Amino acid sequence: MNRQELIQQIRQKQSFLCVGLDTDITKIPQQLVAEKKEEFGETAWLCPAIREFNARIIDATAPYCVAFKPNMAFYEAYGIDGLMAFESTVDYLKKSYPHHLIIADAKRGDIGNTSKMYAKTFFEVYDVDALTVAPYMGEDSVTPFLGYDGKWVVLLALTSNKGSLDFQLTADANGERLFEKVLKQSQQWGSEENMMYVVGATRGHMFEDIRRLAPRHFLLVPGVGAQGGSLQEVCQYGMNADCGLLVNSSRAIIYASSDKNFDEVAAAKARELQQQMAVELDKAGL
Amino acid sequence: MNRQELIQQIRQKQSFLCVGLDTDITKIPQQLVAEKKEEFGETAWLCPAIREFNARIIDATAPYCVAFKPNMAFYEAYGIDGLMAFESTVDYLKKSYPHHLIIADAKRGDIGNTSKMYAKTFFEVYDVDALTVAPYMGEDSVTPFLGYDGKWVVLLALTSNKGSLDFQLTADANGERLFEKVLKQSQQWGSEENMMYVVGATRGHMFEDIRRLAPRHFLLVPGVGAQGGSLQEVCQYGMNADCGLLVNSSRAIIYASSDKNFDEVAAAKARELQQQMAVELDKAGL
Repeated sequence: MNRQELIQQIRQKQSFLCVGLDTDITKIPQQLVAEKKEEFGETAWLCPAIREFNARIIDATAPYCVAFKPNMAFYEAYGIDGLMAFESTVDYLKKSYPHHLIIADAKRGDIGNTSKMYAKTFFEVYDVDALTVAPYMGEDSVTPFLGYDGKWVVLLALTSNKGSLDFQLTADANGERLFEKVLKQSQQWGSEENMMYVVGATRGHMFEDIRRLAPRHFLLVPGVGAQGGSLQEVCQYGMNADCGLLVNSSRAIIYASSDKNFDEVAAAKARELQQQMAVELDKAGL
Repeated sequence: MNRQELIQQIRQKQSFLCVGLDTDITKIPQQLVAEKKEEFGETAWLCPAIREFNARIIDATAPYCVAFKPNMAFYEAYGIDGLMAFESTVDYLKKSYPHHLIIADAKRGDIGNTSKMYAKTFFEVYDVDALTVAPYMGEDSVTPFLGYDGKWVVLLALTSNKGSLDFQLTADANGERLFEKVLKQSQQWGSEENMMYVVGATRGHMFEDIRRLAPRHFLLVPGVGAQGGSLQEVCQYGMNADCGLLVNSSRAIIYASSDKNFDEVAAAKARELQQQMAVELDKAGL
């Protein structure tokens, strides 16, 4: 999905919500787990359980969001079964919701020939639209992901967690902080057509600094909801003329209820966020 | 495997070689691929081909090395089949070579609750001994991997690729470079009993700086061989009283020959490195 299509989807749905599929088998409704155990047996229930949970969350929230972000850790943790569940979730999304952006949250990054293999994995084998990438190893760890038409690198800049303070804010002798260096250098490798940045909502006031360096890029913003970031603050400082934001919510939506009607409750939560987003888009004339 | 056991293995084998299992189906002997296609058919040959290639490389090189390092990218690139090949390679190693350290080269790292899932994947599901981890997201992205007895975090410090110059050498106002900050800060999270560092052999002269900050830690050193680093230089500046080095070689060993007897040629290459290592260990009285 290219930049123009993404902007069009945001305008059309009046939403820049990304739903994070951090599917943890211990947190999904245990009734669904019990049903799948009954149906598929003790050795084969896991993949169908994750698949059905995800499909119901996706169906329920798709009208209110423009992107889905499966978090690879949650699939890898179940080994081969988990990977099968990831693959079938991606297949389901591509078939049923071809206009939603699929972001694999995998935070990969390695020397050139290895990053090339990761690019092949995510952009050819799984064929998702976007991949989160870690910048520590520099240019040749990132560029192999940029050679795919209509695919996106989502590069870590300023993350939402406490540990982001450890290295990302370190300033060099000229006062330039590491996340600023990442924003600047990486614009020599890719453009706003194939690169986004991760910027945590928990650093709301710092979106001004980010926008000085990357005025046109899309930003993927985790940390609204469970992690405590403010949507309004993110929009105030981070929104640009094309919106330029994808705000992610995972736990606050997908685990909003563990009852039978968990999907309806997830839909209501997603709709609530979408309506707040519509207000922000309206303010910006979008 | 704990630190004492690792040091004992190094002394006993007179080797600190780690063999990198970057198994690329297009680079392994095509005769082996053809045989597996014949035996298993067009849809099921991949996992058996990788498994057999790895097993023969492992059998051939095990006498000359103390560690094996499967590079996850090369397995993930083949989707589920690749993961099955990884899993069966790890099983083979654990069963046949329980005294070799298994390092999954995956360069993971995410917010706390996600890193916890990655830790579960590698230290519980696959049950490898060590995992490479990227430091960009700071403390809570690393500590979840440190809570496992006898398991190791191998944290990226100064990598061997060209892109390492982009951010890792950036100095702060006090002249402290990013990789030095990573070495210092991370010693508050873990110790030389559960943490190693990745330091590329292509930065031989910088091992002195590394050893000033991390005198006792083991260093995992890629970049000897295909990437051009010098073993002697690494040892001169990087070896400590317990050796403290694991030098990795991947392509130069596993793709040394594409003939039928590729494993014998790999063994010869590994032995050659082991003999050079024995000389260095002797110099250090180990």
